Amino acid sequence: MNSPVQTSLPTGLSVFSTPRSVAVVGASSNRTKWGYWLAAGAIAGAGRRDVHLVNARGGDILGHACVTSLAELDEAPELVALCVPGPMVGAVVDEALAMGTRGFLGITAGIEDEPLIAERIRAAGARLVGANSLGIYDAAGELDLSWGNFTPGPMAIISQSGQLGSELARFGQHNGIGVSRFVSIGNQTDVTAAELLADLVDHEATRVVVVYLESFAGGAELFDAVAALRAAGKPVILLTVGASAAGSRLARSHTGSLTAPVDIVDAACRAAGVLRAQSPGEVIDVARSVIAGAAPAGRRTVIVGDSGGQCGIAADQAAAHGLSVPALGSDADAALTALLPAGAATSNPVDLAGAGEADLANYVNAVALALADPDVDSAVLTGYFGCYGADNPALMDDELALAQRLADAARAAGKPLYVHSMEATGPVADALWAAGVPTFGTVEPLLRALSGTAVYSLPARDVTIGSVVGDAPTDGYWNARALLLDRGVAFPAAAVVTSVDEAVAAAAELTAPLVLKAAWLEHKSEVGGVKVGLSGEDVAAVFADMHGRLGDGDYVLEEMDTRPDGVEVLIGCQRHPDLGVTVTVGTGGVATEVYADVVLESAPVDAATAADMISRLKAHKLLAGWRGKPATDVAALADVVAAVSRLAASDSRISEIELNPVRVAPGGVVALDALIVADR
Amino acid sequence: MNSPVQTSLPTGLSVFSTPRSVAVVGASSNRTKWGYWLAAGAIAGAGRRDVHLVNARGGDILGHACVTSLAELDEAPELVALCVPGPMVGAVVDEALAMGTRGFLGITAGIEDEPLIAERIRAAGARLVGANSLGIYDAAGELDLSWGNFTPGPMAIISQSGQLGSELARFGQHNGIGVSRFVSIGNQTDVTAAELLADLVDHEATRVVVVYLESFAGGAELFDAVAALRAAGKPVILLTVGASAAGSRLARSHTGSLTAPVDIVDAACRAAGVLRAQSPGEVIDVARSVIAGAAPAGRRTVIVGDSGGQCGIAADQAAAHGLSVPALGSDADAALTALLPAGAATSNPVDLAGAGEADLANYVNAVALALADPDVDSAVLTGYFGCYGADNPALMDDELALAQRLADAARAAGKPLYVHSMEATGPVADALWAAGVPTFGTVEPLLRALSGTAVYSLPARDVTIGSVVGDAPTDGYWNARALLLDRGVAFPAAAVVTSVDEAVAAAAELTAPLVLKAAWLEHKSEVGGVKVGLSGEDVAAVFADMHGRLGDGDYVLEEMDTRPDGVEVLIGCQRHPDLGVTVTVGTGGVATEVYADVVLESAPVDAATAADMISRLKAHKLLAGWRGKPATDVAALADVVAAVSRLAASDSRISEIELNPVRVAPGGVVALDALIVADR
Repeated sequence: MNSPVQTSLPTGLSVFSTPRSVAVVGASSNRTKWGYWLAAGAIAGAGRRDVHLVNARGGDILGHACVTSLAELDEAPELVALCVPGPMVGAVVDEALAMGTRGFLGITAGIEDEPLIAERIRAAGARLVGANSLGIYDAAGELDLSWGNFTPGPMAIISQSGQLGSELARFGQHNGIGVSRFVSIGNQTDVTAAELLADLVDHEATRVVVVYLESFAGGAELFDAVAALRAAGKPVILLTVGASAAGSRLARSHTGSLTAPVDIVDAACRAAGVLRAQSPGEVIDVARSVIAGAAPAGRRTVIVGDSGGQCGIAADQAAAHGLSVPALGSDADAALTALLPAGAATSNPVDLAGAGEADLANYVNAVALALADPDVDSAVLTGYFGCYGADNPALMDDELALAQRLADAARAAGKPLYVHSMEATGPVADALWAAGVPTFGTVEPLLRALSGTAVYSLPARDVTIGSVVGDAPTDGYWNARALLLDRGVAFPAAAVVTSVDEAVAAAAELTAPLVLKAAWLEHKSEVGGVKVGLSGEDVAAVFADMHGRLGDGDYVLEEMDTRPDGVEVLIGCQRHPDLGVTVTVGTGGVATEVYADVVLESAPVDAATAADMISRLKAHKLLAGWRGKPATDVAALADVVAAVSRLAASDSRISEIELNPVRVAPGGVVALDALIVADR
Repeated sequence: MNSPVQTSLPTGLSVFSTPRSVAVVGASSNRTKWGYWLAAGAIAGAGRRDVHLVNARGGDILGHACVTSLAELDEAPELVALCVPGPMVGAVVDEALAMGTRGFLGITAGIEDEPLIAERIRAAGARLVGANSLGIYDAAGELDLSWGNFTPGPMAIISQSGQLGSELARFGQHNGIGVSRFVSIGNQTDVTAAELLADLVDHEATRVVVVYLESFAGGAELFDAVAALRAAGKPVILLTVGASAAGSRLARSHTGSLTAPVDIVDAACRAAGVLRAQSPGEVIDVARSVIAGAAPAGRRTVIVGDSGGQCGIAADQAAAHGLSVPALGSDADAALTALLPAGAATSNPVDLAGAGEADLANYVNAVALALADPDVDSAVLTGYFGCYGADNPALMDDELALAQRLADAARAAGKPLYVHSMEATGPVADALWAAGVPTFGTVEPLLRALSGTAVYSLPARDVTIGSVVGDAPTDGYWNARALLLDRGVAFPAAAVVTSVDEAVAAAAELTAPLVLKAAWLEHKSEVGGVKVGLSGEDVAAVFADMHGRLGDGDYVLEEMDTRPDGVEVLIGCQRHPDLGVTVTVGTGGVATEVYADVVLESAPVDAATAADMISRLKAHKLLAGWRGKPATDVAALADVVAAVSRLAASDSRISEIELNPVRVAPGGVVALDALIVADR
């Protein structure tokens, strides 16, 4: 967005985490003012760097004397925090730049000439975080220029909403995860979220990255940074708004910028391996789980407990969160049957039915046997484990030892174990946590977190936007058809005809029934530009009538697809300015809008991903052979979806492709209409 | 289930809450045994009643001397807790009954002759809770015969799973709600969940009732008890399993009894005003909210916060939990615009955009103005409120006073306020809670609870099963049609024909196109027993052919419904042995199974409830006039749904009704096929 003239290379971002000196301009002794909290935070780092407080009236804050202006300082503060009223910001910035300041933290909101000030900062080779930032924090750098208090830990927070970032930090700390770095990015007038993410790749203290964004400007850079973080073994968890009409309306008014539809954001996240969370609580639960190294390889879980009721609730919650609870294989079932008393359930859930209470070691043995099943990716232990020692101190040592053995069993199986304990705080929970087993006090957040982390083990897909290849696409059905035929998409036999004579001649070469289309028109059906079900004899009269009404143009006479047992679907691609191209496959006809039966992914997709998309359609049952009908050629459909997605993704001039309807039958796939919208 | 010969009136259930004396048979000094915990609990009530411990080897427990058998006692213990091994239970019961014991608590599991023992207990006029119970507790009665520790409070727990009941109690206590009564119902061999619920109607300490059930035997009595509890102002919250395949599979194996499909349970709960929760965490959040008196009159909420990000997340979560976040009316919008600075959002969510931090009173003023909108039923305040005093003690008094004013504003509006505070513990949260404002540390559980309580203010519907009325239904389409015509359901003109001559004569009276049906066959389509689209001339030959294949019977010749712009739906009713009759309306054809577009409620429904059901169909768009087509007669459809539901509910011989398809067009509703399955 910003492309000012640069007179020198911009400084790196280290000035926002480990500045050699810092000044708070607008420091205050009033605890209800930002200037107080930033001053107090800055002073806490005084052992590490020179700290200067600037207040126009002088005085002192927490025993630190203030200067009345930057001019009183001997040297330039490397980083300047701006807490002065909006109209004063420009002058302070210019003064600091003249001294040699390299970084600015803009706290002040509503600065009228903010873009111009940012240009001056960049022109001087310096950088600005904000303005309208709630502050920054770096644990390793002992830098705290924010409202609130942070506890050091492994979680970095980059937030477009300061207060939501603050909530994430606070809730994380309530749940035992401290913060490695916090940046409230404010207006991103200079430094962007993407730059701040990239800066975390080498940030040693950061093991998990939490991002809250309301807009996705610079989406390509954002997802490049995500890829680099993944490569460095640092999971990224994204929280955003706009899943509801009211949330979306507010986000638009709040950021003043284009918001992306949540389904496109979700698709981009799936492709990039970004974990998505829907609430701050979910963010923290997922963060805890990935920090514990408990991301499973898939969505199949086995549930173990000593109570049928608790096992049943866990199974229902697993399904509600998109996990599967498959019946165990015969080996695991037989081993559990041998271990457990009659009355126990040994399939999945595994209900110990009192055998846990009778001998606590059964918890470990059952979990180990269940995890050995090759068709499960994780285990959930639910219920009373973790309470025995709390309720009966004589059992505490035993329970602590078993907690370690549970963790060992999970490690040996190479699959994560999650524990729901009715007593989620205390020595046993601490021991499990220390051994890499996430523990939860209620079972629903556990299954939400297990589901949320299951994405992380999937490989990221390459959805890089390609360069332009091939001929420039042009308007109209015939041209779209030609381009798509070239990419392997089948259409019925057809000919362009411009006169009655040509139409009659073409009809003689084609097999009826035929359709005549006024093919250059985008909404041809609505103006009577499509006539179906024509015999060879009909063609002359129908052409004459249509030509009489619609005039000259490239009409297309085409065979109709009369194969039995066909199902109509649609395939679409759309280019989003920030998030690239998405490909959609859905049921055709009325169902598309009534049942919203569409699946969307970032493009391009390969045939395997396309097949997975098709399998997620509710209408998949129809394609797979409904009620004794033969199965349609789903593999060919997947190939077409992949081909169309490659075309859209590889040519940045294409903004939209729609094939609707596409008819899938047992013998293959034929597109019956096509539209390509391109910028030329 | 049990109908033993009774020699005296059974005792009431007060023996399980306020017995004059109690004996624990199988008391133990070993802390890992149930006999220890029951003995310890019984001893804690020794100031209130005589407590006897029975251990075959004598000795003492916690300073209380044991007797070696009941025979050593001078008087009958009114309540006997059974902790002895299964084979010994029968003898202990007989000894106690001979002495005059009135109540038994069966802890022991796996008693082989349990049904016979229960019959002897009932024959003596005594009662049994369990066996396989995890225990009972009554706060006011100072009776604790259970594993675990309870804190007194307003919540009664009746649980078919002892351990899940224990989890609910423990989690409730972690969240500030103690327990008034706890009953682990075990096998319900004598005392049932329904009886225990009815017994809570007059239980003074109980203000909210939590029930966990896996089976619904005696459904009518259960829901009668629920109605009585509602009338007494005591909300009932139900937790059950079976929403997933794995959960359902386990519940079946666990209880050994028929489980009810969760959608039927849900319908019964909606009709009865029972609050449904999906997890123990949700149970407790909903319980907290209803105890605070915070059940809203509807699902429309207004969200207020000082941060756009937090408001947006709350709006998204509200929608995810089925709440609506409507734009405020012009009065409220104007008042908020006058109150708040430029940059604030005043529609809904209401984003104070810093005005809250600038002047905390704005939180109260904004909430009051938002709640004044007549089209919202509740308000949600999200974010930093509750943290100001914690972060800056100088603000604590102000914030506490404002907490009270927030509660006053909600009370004045007659609408509940829910508060999400980043600091959900501490003096401000306590003050809100004390003033009837539920507070939450994260926003997602808040919206789940607000949604969960929104059911409670709706009036319960009367779905009492009626007595038999009218003629006994009989088999076949023609008889079903006649019965339904009598109830006001329209069918096309038709005649029964049994010969070619009758068919030809009938055709002359009817308007083609016609359909001929072998109407006495249930699956007539599949055997070629339906021919559609007949002209008058076709009839003779088609009848002869069908009769030749299918033989004699009551054929029906019927006009076809050729009205334009019709939409096909289905209407069905089913009788569940425990939960009565449900009525289903759904889209017809393939969509029924592919998109599961059906809505189900307990029958009978009136036309208004039926109209609401229809409006909840995804296909409602099609019925309401899709893409310029005229609207169909939805009101007439609602009347038909209501009439069919009344028929099914009023005649207990009817087990199933299906009208499929039913054709709804602008001019009215016509049923095209009907089936009634009845026991005669």
